[in-house]
Amino acid sequence: MPYQKFERIPRATISRLAIYVQELEAMEQHGVKVVSSEKLAVSCGVNPSQIRKDLAYFGEFGLRGVGYHVFELKEAIKQSLGLDRTWNVALVGVGNLGRALLRYNILRKRGFVIVGAFDCDPFKIGEEVNGLEVYCSSRLQDKSRELNVEIGIITTPPERAQRAVNYLLEAGIKGIVNFAPARITAPPNVAVEYVDFINHLFSIAFIITQNQAKGLY
Amino acid sequence: MPYQKFERIPRATISRLAIYVQELEAMEQHGVKVVSSEKLAVSCGVNPSQIRKDLAYFGEFGLRGVGYHVFELKEAIKQSLGLDRTWNVALVGVGNLGRALLRYNILRKRGFVIVGAFDCDPFKIGEEVNGLEVYCSSRLQDKSRELNVEIGIITTPPERAQRAVNYLLEAGIKGIVNFAPARITAPPNVAVEYVDFINHLFSIAFIITQNQAKGLY
Repeated sequence: MPYQKFERIPRATISRLAIYVQELEAMEQHGVKVVSSEKLAVSCGVNPSQIRKDLAYFGEFGLRGVGYHVFELKEAIKQSLGLDRTWNVALVGVGNLGRALLRYNILRKRGFVIVGAFDCDPFKIGEEVNGLEVYCSSRLQDKSRELNVEIGIITTPPERAQRAVNYLLEAGIKGIVNFAPARITAPPNVAVEYVDFINHLFSIAFIITQNQAKGLY
Repeated sequence: MPYQKFERIPRATISRLAIYVQELEAMEQHGVKVVSSEKLAVSCGVNPSQIRKDLAYFGEFGLRGVGYHVFELKEAIKQSLGLDRTWNVALVGVGNLGRALLRYNILRKRGFVIVGAFDCDPFKIGEEVNGLEVYCSSRLQDKSRELNVEIGIITTPPERAQRAVNYLLEAGIKGIVNFAPARITAPPNVAVEYVDFINHLFSIAFIITQNQAKGLY
């Protein structure tokens, strides 16, 4: 159980491990059995010393002077990240973003299967999106148990995000990914992640502003 | 020009500054003139020592024992982040996610106006999404100049992301926000941000896996 070794694995490392898994899977599909840290680093866009540091957690898969066993390393990382299985997900908020995610096949490919779609708008209830019937959010509790949901995705407007959280908590959800631009509160044993992509635009705007000040354009 | 003071402002700080701006704007709308760091911290979900550290950059707006001038602090942060203006954005890839972003009004509210939508699919060219006509991606160069575009958003499938980048670079774009799950390359003077929301699901899966190992459920 490698995951018990690094309980406090930093967030940035998790992101990189997720990238390594994707690259290792691509290599495996191309019949690659062993890869050097340099080669893996290049294909992941990470520097080699960083990758060696990250993969030190999985030291037993490194072969001095040769590299890593692709299959074993990939499996070890997947097991650590909880990606050696699928996760059932409920989505709350069937607006534009919610619909896009319901149709986003890459989620399923990565092991996250949206099994329920919920909205409190009576005009949306009963509608079918990508093969899923939209249920009233108040049915989250009974539906989540039936569908064995563990993770909730929130794509409501900001003012309805906390209500969606409350429904998800009642349904016994263990983790929430919040796309709504609003702070939410949940008990400490429920994992919460914010996907705030406007922050990425802010970062870009900030960097361009600085580059302009430097006379780079 | 406060932004010249902290050229190497950490990414995490930018995210928090963006949250502070949103909260300060809400306070301003409610007629609040001065706010203590404790109060601002609570409404932003950040601890007070962190907020004081972040806002030390804007020291001149702090009033010892009282707090911060809401309007002045907000304006200073916005100027630093390049948010005291609007940014014209081109979106490449009018799939499900692209359509969702084209209809996502919060972007415009935050100062990012999508002025052009591009796709290489002949069935999509000429279609209208949220009032914007979809153009062929090969027209990015001439259209971007006409529309004064500075930022590109990529929502193509992963295998078409780099081609979209190449079109955006030819069009003289200064920054790119990439939603496609693919690594892309751009020259160093072009800012690139990845919105990889599957990583957030990976993090959640990892935390739940750990909590289960601890017997928390």
